[in-house]
Amino acid sequence: MSRSTQKTFKIRFFVDFVDADPGGVVHFSNYFRFFERAEQEFYRSIGLGGFSWFIQNNYGLPRVKVSCTYKSPLRVDDEIEVELKIEKIGRTSIHYSFHYSFTIHNLTTQKICGTGEVTVVLVDLKKWQPLGIPDTIIKKIETWSKRV
Amino acid sequence: MSRSTQKTFKIRFFVDFVDADPGGVVHFSNYFRFFERAEQEFYRSIGLGGFSWFIQNNYGLPRVKVSCTYKSPLRVDDEIEVELKIEKIGRTSIHYSFHYSFTIHNLTTQKICGTGEVTVVLVDLKKWQPLGIPDTIIKKIETWSKRV
Amino acid sequence: MSRSTQKTFKIRFFVDFVDADPGGVVHFSNYFRFFERAEQEFYRSIGLGGFSWFIQNNYGLPRVKVSCTYKSPLRVDDEIEVELKIEKIGRTSIHYSFHYSFTIHNLTTQKICGTGEVTVVLVDLKKWQPLGIPDTIIKKIETWSKRV
Amino acid sequence: MSRSTQKTFKIRFFVDFVDADPGGVVHFSNYFRFFERAEQEFYRSIGLGGFSWFIQNNYGLPRVKVSCTYKSPLRVDDEIEVELKIEKIGRTSIHYSFHYSFTIHNLTTQKICGTGEVTVVLVDLKKWQPLGIPDTIIKKIETWSKRV
Repeated sequence: MSRSTQKTFKIRFFVDFVDADPGGVVHFSNYFRFFERAEQEFYRSIGLGGFSWFIQNNYGLPRVKVSCTYKSPLRVDDEIEVELKIEKIGRTSIHYSFHYSFTIHNLTTQKICGTGEVTVVLVDLKKWQPLGIPDTIIKKIETWSKRV
Repeated sequence: MSRSTQKTFKIRFFVDFVDADPGGVVHFSNYFRFFERAEQEFYRSIGLGGFSWFIQNNYGLPRVKVSCTYKSPLRVDDEIEVELKIEKIGRTSIHYSFHYSFTIHNLTTQKICGTGEVTVVLVDLKKWQPLGIPDTIIKKIETWSKRV
Repeated sequence: MSRSTQKTFKIRFFVDFVDADPGGVVHFSNYFRFFERAEQEFYRSIGLGGFSWFIQNNYGLPRVKVSCTYKSPLRVDDEIEVELKIEKIGRTSIHYSFHYSFTIHNLTTQKICGTGEVTVVLVDLKKWQPLGIPDTIIKKIETWSKRV
Repeated sequence: MSRSTQKTFKIRFFVDFVDADPGGVVHFSNYFRFFERAEQEFYRSIGLGGFSWFIQNNYGLPRVKVSCTYKSPLRVDDEIEVELKIEKIGRTSIHYSFHYSFTIHNLTTQKICGTGEVTVVLVDLKKWQPLGIPDTIIKKIETWSKRV
């Protein structure tokens, strides 16, 4: 079983000084931190308090596979928009996974500066074993995906 | 010559997952990054585009001395308010310095979680030598300090 | 034109506390920082002073595309070995690129914990335009690849 | 009760690219990460497996107060030596604290680039309450301090 949605979730912020490297541009590893910030804000927006619901219920969301393509540089003080799309919620007999795609828009230069993909699985934070997730959480995501 | 102001500048944001450590709380070094984010937003608010005016005009703002006292923990998804106060703008015959103080309020727990002090000097970014600063910039700060 | 080498370059270090997140494991974005540390040490090992030769000669090495697959967790104080392989040095009429692959071995758990690929291009650090590279540098890499 | 030692513990490493900011120098917040790396290596050197003994036994080591004075810049690829001194092990009826001082030497420029002080307390990682520490640990530190 898998579900997908055409809807996207977006956050905007300015690039912090510390996020850029001696080349004057955002360090490539920070694109993944920006992706995760969008993911965290998404879960906040649907009523899970960011990642807090997961942490409090002993869920971890380790990444399985990630990638990023860099298209144009991001500089200190550029305003950016990170756009998150849930490409797929995967469910097998033993685990749940989320497959997200991300696009980073540089609002200051009007360019797309990067796209990425991130696949996570749900695990028991202590045993680090695959785990299901309550239907109520999946329903929250589906409800969001149908909101206009 | 020195100037000070009683006025404070504040920013609010949520704690990112990556900012916390295996103890479950924000890593102590990140308090200084939060201080700097407030400083950068302050310079954006008075029309300098964050740190961009400084970078474009070849100014660096290296820290000379910093300190932080930790009072209560900050956790993932806590909403925080960082309050910046310009305690002093110092000016000698050869250089300018800014002395800031910061307070981090944890809006989620309603506790003060840290206070800090940061002193920076203005330098030529290439020669790393002390540098003055145009009166127009100092006036922008003074204008801000008098706004109600 | 492209060259490749079967030889690998390896570095070892212990996982810092700050590199792990509230899940108790190294934050996924830091795998890319570990890859870059191996790359920097590689360039140090062949006599370029790490990235210093590039910086001093106004070269940037922006990433074009990166990916990482996570296989098992890395925890605080685990000893790790990052293995770098130069899969390809690409050269067109206008630019040079390096394609690296990486494997992170967790020496503490005796498991492979991640593999990654990183493609970089050489650019003029100021103009952010593709750039060639002196043959002497390419020769240093080739000399290394033939050393037993 | 308090103890102090004149002995110092030192680690050496090269500055990573990602640790420097667009000013071309190590971001000031990273000095504190370097201090912590020395602390972690110190605990590894006396047989505690870095911070692992603390984590496995449910101890946290939150910082209470930290400061740093910056004397000269650290650049990418500079080799540095971080020197740690345990100024004081404090013990009251309810808690233990460690007061460290640090000096960062830039071996490349032959300059001292920063000095710092860090005070930590031992807490129960779950309850975040002050905690004592077994005499065996204190003895390991004392044994180290007497080694020639």
